[in-house]
Amino acid sequence: MSRSIRLAVIPGDGIGQEVVAQGLKVLTAVLPQDVKLETKEYDLGAQRWHATGETLPDAELESLKQHDAILLGAIGDPSVPSGVLERGLLLKLRFAFDHFVNLRPSKLFPNTSTPLAGRPDIDFVVVREGTEGPYTGNGGSLRTGTPAEVATEVSLNTAYGVERVVRDAYERANSRPRKKLTLVHKNNVLVYAGHMWKNIFDKVGQEYPEVTTDYLHVDAATIFFVTQPERFDVIVTDNLFGDILTDLAAAVTGGIGLAASGNINPTGDFPSMFEPVHGSAPDIAGTGKADPTATILSVALLLRHLGYEQQAARIEEAVAADLEARDGSARSTDEIGDALAARVAG
Amino acid sequence: MSRSIRLAVIPGDGIGQEVVAQGLKVLTAVLPQDVKLETKEYDLGAQRWHATGETLPDAELESLKQHDAILLGAIGDPSVPSGVLERGLLLKLRFAFDHFVNLRPSKLFPNTSTPLAGRPDIDFVVVREGTEGPYTGNGGSLRTGTPAEVATEVSLNTAYGVERVVRDAYERANSRPRKKLTLVHKNNVLVYAGHMWKNIFDKVGQEYPEVTTDYLHVDAATIFFVTQPERFDVIVTDNLFGDILTDLAAAVTGGIGLAASGNINPTGDFPSMFEPVHGSAPDIAGTGKADPTATILSVALLLRHLGYEQQAARIEEAVAADLEARDGSARSTDEIGDALAARVAG
Ligand SMILES: CC(C)[C@H](C(=O)O)[C@@H](O)C(=O)O
Ligand SMILES: CC(C)[C@H](C(=O)O)[C@@H](O)C(=O)O
Repeated sequence: MSRSIRLAVIPGDGIGQEVVAQGLKVLTAVLPQDVKLETKEYDLGAQRWHATGETLPDAELESLKQHDAILLGAIGDPSVPSGVLERGLLLKLRFAFDHFVNLRPSKLFPNTSTPLAGRPDIDFVVVREGTEGPYTGNGGSLRTGTPAEVATEVSLNTAYGVERVVRDAYERANSRPRKKLTLVHKNNVLVYAGHMWKNIFDKVGQEYPEVTTDYLHVDAATIFFVTQPERFDVIVTDNLFGDILTDLAAAVTGGIGLAASGNINPTGDFPSMFEPVHGSAPDIAGTGKADPTATILSVALLLRHLGYEQQAARIEEAVAADLEARDGSARSTDEIGDALAARVAG
Repeated sequence: MSRSIRLAVIPGDGIGQEVVAQGLKVLTAVLPQDVKLETKEYDLGAQRWHATGETLPDAELESLKQHDAILLGAIGDPSVPSGVLERGLLLKLRFAFDHFVNLRPSKLFPNTSTPLAGRPDIDFVVVREGTEGPYTGNGGSLRTGTPAEVATEVSLNTAYGVERVVRDAYERANSRPRKKLTLVHKNNVLVYAGHMWKNIFDKVGQEYPEVTTDYLHVDAATIFFVTQPERFDVIVTDNLFGDILTDLAAAVTGGIGLAASGNINPTGDFPSMFEPVHGSAPDIAGTGKADPTATILSVALLLRHLGYEQQAARIEEAVAADLEARDGSARSTDEIGDALAARVAG
């Protein structure tokens, strides 16, 4: 564990600025006195693109690389054509820094709302592959805009890429009390990629005899997310299925305002990046209504990744206690940040 | 409206046999006396494959073509490698008969269970594209089974294919009281296919000024399915997203036991095929526990497609009344079929 943290901060668009400010507040409050926190802010996102046409220049990518981790708020604005910032900035970072483990825990905290009747006991984590599948930007369009247009999207999957994320998921499952790992894919239709995933899943599983395994098609998995979410412990899945499932998971566990995520490169070759699952929510930007909890929980994942397990746990306990203590009255972004900073410091 | 129906019946595997028997029972009961129903049963599925290695021989495909419609129970068994029957039989039929409209209505009937608290008012229909996208079987695997394996899945999308299904969806939306159509895709990541879908959606929309439109990314759509399903009226989406969303839709509207579907070729060039969304459920096959309601509702879609609107509505009303009258005691597959046959005849 290093006694200094060089943190790159990308507040981004919309509520990104506001929630990141609270994340930094809590991070500062929880860190031991002798840990030096150096932050460098990067002006990236919609505004920058409008001003300069740039999404992520090489120089900035290089500069980001010199950090221990990245904290990102949110990227995206309706004024920018769909895909420009996603592909040119957010996904570019995930790919350039080889964030092959996209980690998304889902937990139904006490005293939070869920659309599910009966409040099932939800506590699972999705290990979403982050560098392959339908996200590689492979594909094209022919005769664009004409009645004879053909558009393709290619899902690229490699044994190299699948094995490393599957192994990471087994490690995580093996270290949890229930030791259960579910593979989600669609191998009855996407037979090439699906069978490769399943074969690798079975092969690596032989090294983890204590982990119970299960396989579900993605369509069936969505059913269990709402009818029996307590059956899940760790889930491993491809980039697109993971995208879909983790939004659904967030929805059933108190909403997108609480869902944290880490884009992790476990090798340490590149900085990992932590961000809330929610978007930039331009409709509430600047109103103080954004819930910074997802960002603050992302800070916990960041700390855990850098070896500050105790501090990570302290944030998670603070969030649980804070939610438990809520009386239903509305609190501003700042007030929630203050409350959590006070709890982790105390 | 023809005064005879030549119906091909593919009971298939597991509970397929049992539920199809009830579907035929209700069909016979609801049809006017003077309509001649000719059925021909096809032995296709797991058993046939084990016995002969065949999934769908050309001769049978030709023979199926001579019918007005197809009623299918369920296909699939754990004893058959994943993908063999799906690709070789079920999807082969959808593709060979150009079933480009995969119609899946979702309605929360009174007195049925939903995992959602607050029982929202759900009544929407998903128009899932049925002949393109990631379902075309395009892709492959190189160095299969080695650590250097690469597997691809290609999503193929054509303006021709997208426009016809989008137009169908606008027609359906235009004929419903709320007149609302939502496109679901992921055009911030799958930019080639996604932008084509969105452009065509906007273009065709100009012909339907009374239809209100909306666009959602697929991940966000899953959130609204559980937090605000009443916002949806008609949804149009691609083959894979439609697969995922309709299982989720079934889960929130009383379960997969009630979800009907039609694989429709609106041109009439080929017979359309009607089937419950659920699978073959081998674990309960033969126990009389299967709920035939989804199949019976699929028969209603079949009748509507063939022009028997009144009879279709009678089945749907019978199902609603039957569910309403349930007292919670378990009924067998047969008993449910009998009850519904009695109601539609009465
Ligand atoms: C914004 C978008 C590119 C992104 C994704 O699809 O991965 C988001 O939905 C997420 O889940 O982080
Ligand atoms: C069995 C499978 C091939 C099929 C599909 O993916 O379309 C099923 O899930 C469905 O929704 O009808």
